[in-house]
Amino acid sequence: MAITSIKEALAGAVSSGGEITIQGWIRTRRDSKAGISFLNVHDGSCFDPIQIVVPKELANYEETVLQITSGCAVTITGTLVQSQGKGQSFEIQATQVTVVGWVENPDSYPIQPKPHTVEFLREVAHLRPRTNLIGAVTRVRNTISQSIHQFFNENGYCWIHTPIITASDCEGAGELFRVSALDMQNLPRTEQGNIDFSQDFFGCESFLTVSGQLNVEAYCLAMSKVYTFGPTFRAENSNTSRHLAEFWMVEPEIAFADLKDVIQLAENMLKYVFNKVLSERADDMDFFAKRVEKTAISRLQHILESQFVEIDYTDAIKILQDSGKKFEHPVSWGIDLQTEHERFLSEEHVKAPVVVSNYPKDIKAFYMRMNDDNKTVAAMDVLAPGIGEIIGGSQREERLDKLDLRLDEMGIPKESLGWYRDLRRYGTVPHGGFGLGLERLVSYITGVANVRDVIPFPRTRRNAGF
Amino acid sequence: MAITSIKEALAGAVSSGGEITIQGWIRTRRDSKAGISFLNVHDGSCFDPIQIVVPKELANYEETVLQITSGCAVTITGTLVQSQGKGQSFEIQATQVTVVGWVENPDSYPIQPKPHTVEFLREVAHLRPRTNLIGAVTRVRNTISQSIHQFFNENGYCWIHTPIITASDCEGAGELFRVSALDMQNLPRTEQGNIDFSQDFFGCESFLTVSGQLNVEAYCLAMSKVYTFGPTFRAENSNTSRHLAEFWMVEPEIAFADLKDVIQLAENMLKYVFNKVLSERADDMDFFAKRVEKTAISRLQHILESQFVEIDYTDAIKILQDSGKKFEHPVSWGIDLQTEHERFLSEEHVKAPVVVSNYPKDIKAFYMRMNDDNKTVAAMDVLAPGIGEIIGGSQREERLDKLDLRLDEMGIPKESLGWYRDLRRYGTVPHGGFGLGLERLVSYITGVANVRDVIPFPRTRRNAGF
Repeated sequence: MAITSIKEALAGAVSSGGEITIQGWIRTRRDSKAGISFLNVHDGSCFDPIQIVVPKELANYEETVLQITSGCAVTITGTLVQSQGKGQSFEIQATQVTVVGWVENPDSYPIQPKPHTVEFLREVAHLRPRTNLIGAVTRVRNTISQSIHQFFNENGYCWIHTPIITASDCEGAGELFRVSALDMQNLPRTEQGNIDFSQDFFGCESFLTVSGQLNVEAYCLAMSKVYTFGPTFRAENSNTSRHLAEFWMVEPEIAFADLKDVIQLAENMLKYVFNKVLSERADDMDFFAKRVEKTAISRLQHILESQFVEIDYTDAIKILQDSGKKFEHPVSWGIDLQTEHERFLSEEHVKAPVVVSNYPKDIKAFYMRMNDDNKTVAAMDVLAPGIGEIIGGSQREERLDKLDLRLDEMGIPKESLGWYRDLRRYGTVPHGGFGLGLERLVSYITGVANVRDVIPFPRTRRNAGF
Repeated sequence: MAITSIKEALAGAVSSGGEITIQGWIRTRRDSKAGISFLNVHDGSCFDPIQIVVPKELANYEETVLQITSGCAVTITGTLVQSQGKGQSFEIQATQVTVVGWVENPDSYPIQPKPHTVEFLREVAHLRPRTNLIGAVTRVRNTISQSIHQFFNENGYCWIHTPIITASDCEGAGELFRVSALDMQNLPRTEQGNIDFSQDFFGCESFLTVSGQLNVEAYCLAMSKVYTFGPTFRAENSNTSRHLAEFWMVEPEIAFADLKDVIQLAENMLKYVFNKVLSERADDMDFFAKRVEKTAISRLQHILESQFVEIDYTDAIKILQDSGKKFEHPVSWGIDLQTEHERFLSEEHVKAPVVVSNYPKDIKAFYMRMNDDNKTVAAMDVLAPGIGEIIGGSQREERLDKLDLRLDEMGIPKESLGWYRDLRRYGTVPHGGFGLGLERLVSYITGVANVRDVIPFPRTRRNAGF
């Protein structure tokens, strides 16, 4: 028995009037007085469910069809015909309806055919992919993720699986999760009374990575064009809609490259992804534009038509100061830009994506390349209308003497970065890259504001058990 | 200045006699008595370096070119010409040689142009991608990883990023790494003196995932075709060449499917990947066949031409017992097959990939579907000639009553699997999938025996600091 996906069925996969079998889950059942039932069935392959028309003449109509509720799993065979109703291309006139899996106690089934709040859906994370909203997020997230790999693969980049468990907290990027196989009830101690991590699995203190960048630089200085795409972790207890403890990050790194090359790469990659999403997930994006964020489609289209505008940080500060706007966070040279500043620059000042570059060294990481002014580093942030910073990157300090100066300045012990400093000894070249948080991007593209709603299994107080 | 990759240059990207600029790292320099230097330059884009012919007439010949050593980073402009030497398609007659990054103290540079042992290279993991061996592994690993995504994407699967940090050890698949943000020196205690994990980051004990399967099943029962592809972790102190504490795993899951469908999916996916590797990485595979494992190419070709042969576990036991072979581990119904058994079946008995199915329930996990004999479960392993088990999968127990029986039998508390059991209450359907370890597959395809040599940053006693 050949199965047709609902996506193919709605596209008229078999010629009208041909026999077809589909499988999926019931979204709604409606019975007409004339003795016809209408079933809406989804299978995850596309946004729209397909409508099944079931005549009461079916042998199991009373006993089965009239018992069907939302969430039941069904196999349906019938004739694919052009739909009379508007908004639907094709529907199926059923000749056979089989329930594969019933819903035990339909009244308590959490996914009823009515709007649910996102807060409620987080509590039933294992069932929420059956909803319109999370189904659409899942498909769009997939298309974004796939298109990121496609972009880099088509352009000759190697995907490097940098370590998830790491011994170094070089970045100082935030609170770390510790990884250990020690027995917490009976921790081994050194003579001094400290915990003896030499007895732990890796023979030293270990953490979850906050970024694969330092590692991927080593591969960049051998393979020229590389990227990581994997999970990263921050143990920051900032319970906002924009922060996750566990999130996926994309980090490309290119050799023989300066900040301009990194900026160009960021623009090319974002536009590639936006194009793919608009063309491959038009149905889901349509839903987001109608129900979640009116500008979901138009703002992507606008970015695709725009040139990214580069503004020097020092100029950006001047623009903000001269704007006459009252900001919550006062503006002066040396501050880190806040979301309100970033959004003003991209939404009001240039009305397009803005790339702010050459930030003060004191607000940036040790590995960013010192500019000749000795005050700023070759860093850049891409600010997009409607969200603010979406990409952060830099040219890296490839000169060992300058890197060491910065390490000393910031009090970072050189021993911990022996291998990283080594790279500057042996055939070092200008290089750089950026980081892009996947969930941030999915949230931006879909308009779904809370990043907890674009990951598969958010934890809440009541459902921590995944 | 437009840069050409060495891959494109060797393919004759510019018409012979045209000007070209390449960038990369020196592998070797050789000087002829006639006053010509030959530089071999690699940039990671392909296996072969390109040969640069440098005449002594170059302005910086004495002062620069004759100082060049292995590992220096260079930018070279010249004329692309057909090579006179054999084995090389094109070479460059240099008109300009610039050293971008020197090698400080060439005698101590670890990557000399001579064979190194894999043990030595593990100690210089940050520089080893510049070698022929690790460069080739990196490109092949990339092609394998990309082709896995391509296969699933082309076939309508959604990539699901299942959680890395998890609260459940349901699988009982082995020793777990604990993840914690607690202060290890001052652990909070409950009144009973136990560690108070309610004060930890997630409010409960948390671990690194050993598999995304249970989570991905929830998405399978909404999206129909899904897969995970991410890092998984086992804190097993088995220090063999086949085990890693951190490794990437691919886990597809399909709905409305039985064990036969799962087996077919495994065969289709493996063949798709093998085809991509042979066609896209012919240069690297040629190297592996010449230098690492003679059958590297031929055994993939053989599998591509073979039908996978399915053998029932019970029949496999009989075949092994009747083989007249003396095995180290004695054979009887109920044992888990050892590598020697697996290799006999695939290499000697059928001389092709073998799929052993329907294993005794006592050696398999709780979630595998009970067969009607109540003794075996719908599990399968794909055994490949030359390595043994490469894929393990099963149909899942979709019937709640049977699942609960197994949980009771195995003493697994039902509360911990509330959401998983829920899936069997609401529109459950037959479904199944498999798991494939990426590093295992890379090791098999390249012939590089130790999985530590197919990951980017192996840890050793001396280089634990990544």
